[in-house]
Amino acid sequence: MDDRKVGVRIALGVEYDGRAFSGWQSQPDGNTVQDALNRALSVIAHEPVVCAAAGRTDAGVHAAMQVAHFDTTARRPLSAWVRGVNAHLPPEVAVVWAREVGDDFHARFSAFSRSYSYFLLNHPVRPSLLAGKVGWYHAPLDAGAMREAAAFLLGRHDFSSFRAAECQAKSPEKHLQRFDVDEQDGLIRFDLTADAFLHHMVRNLVGALVYAGSGRLSLDGLAELLARRERRYAPPTFMPDGLYLTGVGYPETFGLPSCAQPARLALWR
Amino acid sequence: MDDRKVGVRIALGVEYDGRAFSGWQSQPDGNTVQDALNRALSVIAHEPVVCAAAGRTDAGVHAAMQVAHFDTTARRPLSAWVRGVNAHLPPEVAVVWAREVGDDFHARFSAFSRSYSYFLLNHPVRPSLLAGKVGWYHAPLDAGAMREAAAFLLGRHDFSSFRAAECQAKSPEKHLQRFDVDEQDGLIRFDLTADAFLHHMVRNLVGALVYAGSGRLSLDGLAELLARRERRYAPPTFMPDGLYLTGVGYPETFGLPSCAQPARLALWR
Repeated sequence: MDDRKVGVRIALGVEYDGRAFSGWQSQPDGNTVQDALNRALSVIAHEPVVCAAAGRTDAGVHAAMQVAHFDTTARRPLSAWVRGVNAHLPPEVAVVWAREVGDDFHARFSAFSRSYSYFLLNHPVRPSLLAGKVGWYHAPLDAGAMREAAAFLLGRHDFSSFRAAECQAKSPEKHLQRFDVDEQDGLIRFDLTADAFLHHMVRNLVGALVYAGSGRLSLDGLAELLARRERRYAPPTFMPDGLYLTGVGYPETFGLPSCAQPARLALWR
Repeated sequence: MDDRKVGVRIALGVEYDGRAFSGWQSQPDGNTVQDALNRALSVIAHEPVVCAAAGRTDAGVHAAMQVAHFDTTARRPLSAWVRGVNAHLPPEVAVVWAREVGDDFHARFSAFSRSYSYFLLNHPVRPSLLAGKVGWYHAPLDAGAMREAAAFLLGRHDFSSFRAAECQAKSPEKHLQRFDVDEQDGLIRFDLTADAFLHHMVRNLVGALVYAGSGRLSLDGLAELLARRERRYAPPTFMPDGLYLTGVGYPETFGLPSCAQPARLALWR
């Protein structure tokens, strides 16, 4: 039997404020992004729908572009999977686009890269307008030192020193393709792309860069840390507040947007 | 008796997320920015403190820079009025700076101008990451038409057509000195400066510009509307979500910052 004759596979671009949820992954209490999405999709489909995502973000971590997919026998115009579903979602999550894809597409397994951004307010006073939306460090950070540390970490490495104990990845070896540090008027932005990230890897890398920027971790120290491949010697995991999943890379044949639309994450500029 | 010998007057720069509060102005239920600030200041002062602000923002309206002042007999280093007070404030409000001022300074009566910014997401899908932080309009808006309408409104006018019924201002005549419209990738930013604003005036002006941008209000229609000086003919009040008090102008002799630090309101850029 040909599955594609009885149903369709739909890919979704999903945006959410991570503070409102206990992370992506479905949980018995139901207060996760996946649970909210499954419920809303099931209403529109008139049948139980379960979606899968490119990356399982933790509690408090945001997505400017998460990608998910689901199968359904329901035939709806694509707008129903956007506007219709959004009408059944809480205000802190929205479907931004929907596309029909072949059943060879899988939001997680077809992805060859993930991109994250981390926004850090570097100011003596904690954020309030952007509470929960940016990380915070009170003392001045040396952007140059952080840039050097970031450049050192580029490439394929065993990132065990930046891996959470509960990480389920098969291999600690990941290829960090981008780690940019931009600073403007006290707002520091980190942009990272890798084939995949270990659990807490971005927050652990940002934590290490904050140590580098505040003079507590030299380039030699960082090299030693990476070589040790043990989490316990590394600086602590940085707060989730400023972390955003901003894009997922798929082969072009699937025809999906590769990153978030800037305006949807833009405030002052 | 010289008041300045027994006490001091302190001016504060205050930032807050308006969604967390029932507006600025003190209320019996106590869930206002002023109430939160009075409580925190009183803890640090070890005496009851009541502060006054430059502008009484409504529920849901944010401040990147509100200015307030209070009198106290307590002598504290200025850092106590920032870091000390912040330790007693909810996460959605923070004191960003404190300065000692003379008793000829009054946060409201010394101000000769107020500046507001309004951020509007112009996109088919409602905001979720920035829910409550930006206004939203789903259909395409013509930035050129909005810019023309804004330019027409500049200058000194009787703004009764853009005044809420409950407005307590003595005169409906205000001098609109700046009304800029910037559009980038579907995020529209309005910047307004006036000597003072009537109640709901910014939200009513933004509402009129959205009508102008969607072809429902011509320049002639806007001229007629302004000339009528009656609220009931004007487009509806726009949502508070995207509105930020961003600066208050005082005579230079007081030595106060005139606007918010960009990084504290910056996200993607």
